[in-house]
Amino acid sequence: MPPHTPDFKNRLAAHAAAVEQALAALLDDATRPGELARPARLMEAMRYAVLGGGKRLRPVLVLESAALCGGNPDAAMRVACAVEMLHCYSLAHDDLPAMDNDDLRRGRPTLHRVFDDAMAILAGDALLTYAFDVLADEATHADPRLRAELVLGLARSSGLGGMAGGQALDLEAEGRYDKGQRQSLNVAETRRLQAMKTGALIAFSAEAGAIVADASPDQRKALRAYGHAIGAAFQIADDILDVEADAATLGKATGKDQARGKSTLVEFLGLDAAKAERDRLVQEAKTALASFGDKAATLSVAADFVAARQS
Amino acid sequence: MPPHTPDFKNRLAAHAAAVEQALAALLDDATRPGELARPARLMEAMRYAVLGGGKRLRPVLVLESAALCGGNPDAAMRVACAVEMLHCYSLAHDDLPAMDNDDLRRGRPTLHRVFDDAMAILAGDALLTYAFDVLADEATHADPRLRAELVLGLARSSGLGGMAGGQALDLEAEGRYDKGQRQSLNVAETRRLQAMKTGALIAFSAEAGAIVADASPDQRKALRAYGHAIGAAFQIADDILDVEADAATLGKATGKDQARGKSTLVEFLGLDAAKAERDRLVQEAKTALASFGDKAATLSVAADFVAARQS
Repeated sequence: MPPHTPDFKNRLAAHAAAVEQALAALLDDATRPGELARPARLMEAMRYAVLGGGKRLRPVLVLESAALCGGNPDAAMRVACAVEMLHCYSLAHDDLPAMDNDDLRRGRPTLHRVFDDAMAILAGDALLTYAFDVLADEATHADPRLRAELVLGLARSSGLGGMAGGQALDLEAEGRYDKGQRQSLNVAETRRLQAMKTGALIAFSAEAGAIVADASPDQRKALRAYGHAIGAAFQIADDILDVEADAATLGKATGKDQARGKSTLVEFLGLDAAKAERDRLVQEAKTALASFGDKAATLSVAADFVAARQS
Repeated sequence: MPPHTPDFKNRLAAHAAAVEQALAALLDDATRPGELARPARLMEAMRYAVLGGGKRLRPVLVLESAALCGGNPDAAMRVACAVEMLHCYSLAHDDLPAMDNDDLRRGRPTLHRVFDDAMAILAGDALLTYAFDVLADEATHADPRLRAELVLGLARSSGLGGMAGGQALDLEAEGRYDKGQRQSLNVAETRRLQAMKTGALIAFSAEAGAIVADASPDQRKALRAYGHAIGAAFQIADDILDVEADAATLGKATGKDQARGKSTLVEFLGLDAAKAERDRLVQEAKTALASFGDKAATLSVAADFVAARQS
């Protein structure tokens, strides 16, 4: 089943629709126990940041990994939503004028362009916080050990030693804190930055499905290895896309990495070698799934999908 | 033991010093398991946001509540640090030009003035995330049920239905999203806003000590009631201070509430009635502690301390 087959596309579309619905339900206006109110504008901003599109790659990884390990689909959906809220908070903050200053995201004006910087900061903060609320809630899983593991995994993959740390390294490399002098990262530093900024959360997404399914340590390790490989493949595909695609296809500005002087593996390796590494990583991801046999077919195709991304 | 006695002041100073040391240890440069790196500038910014002062009210509440319920002091210290990191992230984001635009905090330049807006946003994000990391970590408590409860309590008190939601209501009231037209909050709305913005996290701080000590439901309820009362008293004391104090005493600008047209209880009730309400809340806090007897003397004095604050 290659990534362009109707079967796979239908499955992705079904996941995306279900995730959209579940996110909308979590972010409705009805106050939950322990909440004093749900402020109207804040909820609007949070919904704008989260709803209405995106590939939903991370939720799909959670849902498919959980299904592979026999996890409860409702529990997996809550975890998928938490991971997506985390991802969307990071987009809202990264798009801010003080950060990457992007006006367009998924073909729509970015959150701070629709509201303002203050509400974009605040909605991001609230999404980040709500992700942990959702994971720690009994509704996600009866076993608190698994809930605590999910919280820890999400915090580690998205915090100072993961995604936020990767973004900080990116800002440093732009020379913001060295009198405008850009830092030249070497290839190892570039790989580490990318592993933190995008790889860690993708790897956790694949592992999170195994956690919520209370899978064996071996299964969990295999899905984490799979996630690491496709996380790295995803980033290379993104760098290739930034060079090759046009803004109309992508729904956001292109060529920005180069304009900002950001180091990418495409720049270090050249386009052909970068594509070869991407393909090698896809194979590595598939190899990690070997012990699951045919049941892992969807995740296997998802690896191809990540590498073949056009947007 | 009134709040100005040497005994109480020494106890506060000892707590503050111990919290400072524990925060510094959590925020050192040594990479922990699950972290790919600790970026130097980010860690500097996080330390700047967290270290070097503050009353440490929330950590003190955690530590004293835990001690009262027989909790492990090391576990309580980790929880105290998580709550303080959460509080300091909120200060860093609230001080941003896009939010309250403050240049001075605790008598020092605010985080974004020392670094820049991007690093202040990011360091705040990382502190928020790290708070959950610390709580979910086995090092905090062997029982995952308590860790999950701590995570849930922190998320609820600081998220969309708590602190972040309160800040959103504050921005709305300023009229930012209604063509500059300030909203007139009534007294009930003002109370709710303040209960969310500052009260919820203070109430959780007192309860968190009981959670980490695995205290009885009655004890937990009592400490939560105590926390609610002093949270409300704290806010009124803050409003009174904004009217009465001068900037030199406070270490930050004064009279800003009025300049911004923010609704406060002082404005609704007048200064004398506000002071009477503050004193009534202190009594309510002390009454909540009754079942603990003399053992709760320090928390009882802490209620006076909160009401008598000069900075």
